[in-house]
Amino acid sequence: MRVIVPAGEGRAVKVSTGQRVRVTDLDGGQVGDVFAFAADDVSEHLSASHTRAAISRLFPLVGEQFVTDRRRPILTLVADTSPGRHDMLIAACDPARYRALGVPGFHASCADNLGESLSRLGLACPGIPQPVNVFMRIPVADDGRLSWLSSVSRPGDAITFEAAMDCVFVLSACPQDLVGINGHQPTPLAIDLITQGESER
Amino acid sequence: MRVIVPAGEGRAVKVSTGQRVRVTDLDGGQVGDVFAFAADDVSEHLSASHTRAAISRLFPLVGEQFVTDRRRPILTLVADTSPGRHDMLIAACDPARYRALGVPGFHASCADNLGESLSRLGLACPGIPQPVNVFMRIPVADDGRLSWLSSVSRPGDAITFEAAMDCVFVLSACPQDLVGINGHQPTPLAIDLITQGESER
Repeated sequence: MRVIVPAGEGRAVKVSTGQRVRVTDLDGGQVGDVFAFAADDVSEHLSASHTRAAISRLFPLVGEQFVTDRRRPILTLVADTSPGRHDMLIAACDPARYRALGVPGFHASCADNLGESLSRLGLACPGIPQPVNVFMRIPVADDGRLSWLSSVSRPGDAITFEAAMDCVFVLSACPQDLVGINGHQPTPLAIDLITQGESER
Repeated sequence: MRVIVPAGEGRAVKVSTGQRVRVTDLDGGQVGDVFAFAADDVSEHLSASHTRAAISRLFPLVGEQFVTDRRRPILTLVADTSPGRHDMLIAACDPARYRALGVPGFHASCADNLGESLSRLGLACPGIPQPVNVFMRIPVADDGRLSWLSSVSRPGDAITFEAAMDCVFVLSACPQDLVGINGHQPTPLAIDLITQGESER
């Protein structure tokens, strides 16, 4: 099953244990904010800070797992055809972020996209966890400085997760067009839901 | 006003805008988990991921600010007499963490200490935000690997924050005695609440 996530919008899909979710950067250079919640209780969510503690890394390697705020594995990183520049340090963009960047009125945001995506599945948003920002390039210098660089993912690059529990997977095609992370032109992403036994291609 | 935080326990204090809070490592080598919440609505809390986005660093420099999940400044880092090795990557220890480390029964944790500290002020705990781990040494290698090293703070070393809004400041003297961050022997910390005009000494 393929779900297209239009530029600047979000979508949520339910994923069963063992199913895989592939996120494809259709046009290249586009950041995706990923959130994941336990299907039976969305107050349990993928947690960046618990994941870092579990793996002793800033971002999992292929084969490593993301865990929840209750330290249970929720997603395994199983494949990555991109240059592997992803971020797990930065909060989701939200209305306050765009106000601070000088936008006077409404601006789409990953935080709003999360709420709307869950709402379409009939779920209330339990808060805005720190996302996993796939294809987002935020290098860390030796002195702890972070740089905000343009994504280097190429058209068709993909990162694939396997569900370690029944979960709700949310992807926002980040609408950020003021900071240069998306090259100022947000583009769509695709979610492919792959059941074990089907081709991973 | 001085509040001693006994080894492995937590304490909360209310801090008014402009007041300073100094955290002193009395015996040296002790990690403190700091949490801060807006006084008028504890659902707003100091957020590590929003702070990193605001300052483009893994940890603020003296003079920089920690912000909340609504991107409002809550604490300013105003002084640091320690070697400056602090962490803002790792989740608070909690019962699940100690179970995973092989502890069969109860073990004190920073997460439980947070709840108990707020409860003593008559406040319900709105969740366990990612803490600011003062005196905690988690260096980041070039390849993103994190190391868990013993704290290098010396007896009497202190880090001082100034409240940028009326807030509730919580400090847990981390009870972690299995991973080496506290040198296997948790010790007490002190909170000094300093009103402007009084000596900062």
